[in-house]
Amino acid sequence: MEEMFRLLYGGALSGTTGAKNVTPAELEDLDKKMVNADFWLSEGREAGREGFGWLELPWMDLSEIKKQGEWLGKFESIIQIGIGGSALGNRMLNKALLHPYYNELPADQRKGPKYYLAENVDPASDYAIWDRVDPSSVALLVISKSGSTAETMANFLFFLEKLKDSIGEEEALKRVLVVTDPEKGNLRALAKEKGCRSLDIPSGVGGRYSVLSPVGLAAACAMGIDVEMLLKGARSAMEKITKPGPLFERPCHLLAALSWLHGRKGRTLDVLMPYSDRLSDFVEWFAQLWAESIGKDGKGFTPVRALGAVDQHSQVQLYTEGPDDKLFTLIDVQNRSKDIDIPLTGMDSLSPLEYMGKGSMNRMISYEASSTAAAILKSGKPVLWIELPRIDEEVMGALIFFYQYSTALTGYLLSIDPFDQPGVEQGKKYTYGLMGRDGYSEHAAEVRDIFRQVDSASAGL
Amino acid sequence: MEEMFRLLYGGALSGTTGAKNVTPAELEDLDKKMVNADFWLSEGREAGREGFGWLELPWMDLSEIKKQGEWLGKFESIIQIGIGGSALGNRMLNKALLHPYYNELPADQRKGPKYYLAENVDPASDYAIWDRVDPSSVALLVISKSGSTAETMANFLFFLEKLKDSIGEEEALKRVLVVTDPEKGNLRALAKEKGCRSLDIPSGVGGRYSVLSPVGLAAACAMGIDVEMLLKGARSAMEKITKPGPLFERPCHLLAALSWLHGRKGRTLDVLMPYSDRLSDFVEWFAQLWAESIGKDGKGFTPVRALGAVDQHSQVQLYTEGPDDKLFTLIDVQNRSKDIDIPLTGMDSLSPLEYMGKGSMNRMISYEASSTAAAILKSGKPVLWIELPRIDEEVMGALIFFYQYSTALTGYLLSIDPFDQPGVEQGKKYTYGLMGRDGYSEHAAEVRDIFRQVDSASAGL
Repeated sequence: MEEMFRLLYGGALSGTTGAKNVTPAELEDLDKKMVNADFWLSEGREAGREGFGWLELPWMDLSEIKKQGEWLGKFESIIQIGIGGSALGNRMLNKALLHPYYNELPADQRKGPKYYLAENVDPASDYAIWDRVDPSSVALLVISKSGSTAETMANFLFFLEKLKDSIGEEEALKRVLVVTDPEKGNLRALAKEKGCRSLDIPSGVGGRYSVLSPVGLAAACAMGIDVEMLLKGARSAMEKITKPGPLFERPCHLLAALSWLHGRKGRTLDVLMPYSDRLSDFVEWFAQLWAESIGKDGKGFTPVRALGAVDQHSQVQLYTEGPDDKLFTLIDVQNRSKDIDIPLTGMDSLSPLEYMGKGSMNRMISYEASSTAAAILKSGKPVLWIELPRIDEEVMGALIFFYQYSTALTGYLLSIDPFDQPGVEQGKKYTYGLMGRDGYSEHAAEVRDIFRQVDSASAGL
Repeated sequence: MEEMFRLLYGGALSGTTGAKNVTPAELEDLDKKMVNADFWLSEGREAGREGFGWLELPWMDLSEIKKQGEWLGKFESIIQIGIGGSALGNRMLNKALLHPYYNELPADQRKGPKYYLAENVDPASDYAIWDRVDPSSVALLVISKSGSTAETMANFLFFLEKLKDSIGEEEALKRVLVVTDPEKGNLRALAKEKGCRSLDIPSGVGGRYSVLSPVGLAAACAMGIDVEMLLKGARSAMEKITKPGPLFERPCHLLAALSWLHGRKGRTLDVLMPYSDRLSDFVEWFAQLWAESIGKDGKGFTPVRALGAVDQHSQVQLYTEGPDDKLFTLIDVQNRSKDIDIPLTGMDSLSPLEYMGKGSMNRMISYEASSTAAAILKSGKPVLWIELPRIDEEVMGALIFFYQYSTALTGYLLSIDPFDQPGVEQGKKYTYGLMGRDGYSEHAAEVRDIFRQVDSASAGL
């Protein structure tokens, strides 16, 4: 079977990483624990425990998603309304698999509708989207598992109202596809009351583990992304990842183990730096997965979002000469779809650039990746290196699954639950309180009280 | 004079921030040092020292920039070619001051050409840009102070070649505007040899401090951004910032002092989280400014890029329940240009959302900001709060200058040079070596040797 993923981890082992070495023996000590972690995951999956549902997604029946995706695909534009786990997965897939200026392409060069994402509650952004669509051919794809995510519901109410004003309530509701819990919540109730189209988010699947469910796949289908291949890649990854073997042969487990070991030595920042524009939003998706899954109980590692070669001109100064508090993962891609042979001009003034003419742009970006890895290593900090064969649906499916599994393993090593997010509740309650929602007046009083401390010292100019 | 900026810092002082308090007395102790820092900056400026040139930019003569900007503005599209400090400032200005879907707007709704940025060396991105422009009406704006930035020059060679193929060499060279050193480097030499248009990057201005120079302003002019007002805002900020007074009344100095004090207590991650989509790329610009300026000599704080309310659904779990290693700065905007009264549907199923109908979306996003601040504070971590009156050219000019000045002050407190970036040289030399540039063969050998360590242990699937 073709290799979909390779982890080079010599740069994160002793002898290369300065004073705070991780030794092969420390890794080896984790072998048994990792086998237990696999058992914990497979048991949770079989028992259908809350949070473990993503392990089933690669085997999901896609027929309903494809049907709704096909319907969505016939519009001129779709507006997806969602935030966090109901947005980041789509951003990742679109960036990796669609044309970089997808919306600007003429219709005959796109495989689907123009795509707008209403994520934040920011009126300027909402109006900007509404300005861009033709109400006679737009669909609303609204995604919230609970149906009560404040930002998503506020945006949905705005776009639904606009659409009603244009084409009437009955027609407007025919343009809505909700993706939500199969039973509960406002969006499910709406679908039942008004007969809106709907797709179910399978039970036990949390937001940040949901991209390979209707959450990520409905819009992907509409835009011509091959969702079968995404799941095929994920299945293949799952099979290989869970195959027993010594830790040294298991890249997914090695990534978790090395993240944890370096974290224990004070390297609590995890920099993910792919060398491909197409993976720039993969990093955003990873940042949620990593932060929400393992940042709890006073523990956790902070994801640092980077992009090579761009951040060589922004962050590498800090990476090489700053404090030794980071573990770096660089991603290189072996077969990129297109290449450019750097042309020479023959002009005298540009003759110092002739050295470039010996190479192609793809060789150059890979050289930059290895040069950055070497410069960071030379400064005594650890570097992991991931090689992807190419970027397509199959590899993205594998990569997504790989990172989800590795994050869950890291949570296991930290003895925390990687599938909950209790820390986001406090802020939500405060917002409900400030917005005057019944039953939250005490929270309103508390947030006002705390904010008085913020305001107790200030200076302006 | 109208207030352009307010810093609320009670949330970063003792009593609110858990075990690692910063006390007012610790702040007060820095008063004298801050006065010395002002002196160091004004002296460096007057002496025309390398790196201090940005302090002069607000008083720059704009006539030549406007002339070239007007010329650029007549094309259907411009391709800006630059990376790091020659790209991030434009991204920041465009995001803050142009329509979110600027390129998609019909020509009569834009004040200038469509804008494409070639930043990374990624052939897929380059081809995607070239596919989108009409060679008969495109200009190339190429920006590199040294004229030898590898990524920029490779991209420039590609686009120049494409343009030559379409309209011939002579015409192609008439479409090039170089922004570079007044005297030195390949781009200056090209302008001299072939008579290309050019603008000077003033001497003593480093890349990350250059947005208010031709680097950022040429394209801004072309797209109808009011560059006079940008400089007016920066001048006004400079005058207010440098006015002597007690530290407690000086927000720019307070931001530096508190960053440094919290950093000394182990809070070495600085999270910048504006609550406005329009400031999402301000954070990217800040990240370069902060990382490259103060990350050196083993010191430095890591910038963490965030966006409210979006990252409440991605990072706030970690922020509240993760380790106490961060100082948070949230930015709120008082007068946003547009608002939305959240509409109610009257539908039974959505009646639980009626609490939202009491408020507007702008109130909601501000409530979310204060709720997040309170939730973070409640978890024992320090929060700074910045209030901007609005987002326009004048305020952006002030904000840019404020952050540049505050970053320089932080560098002074850390006893490092905030204007150099020695740590990026190593990787560049390695890349030159791998690309076969004369004189770099030893570096090629070294990078290959180090990379062998990376490759010494690997696992695939």
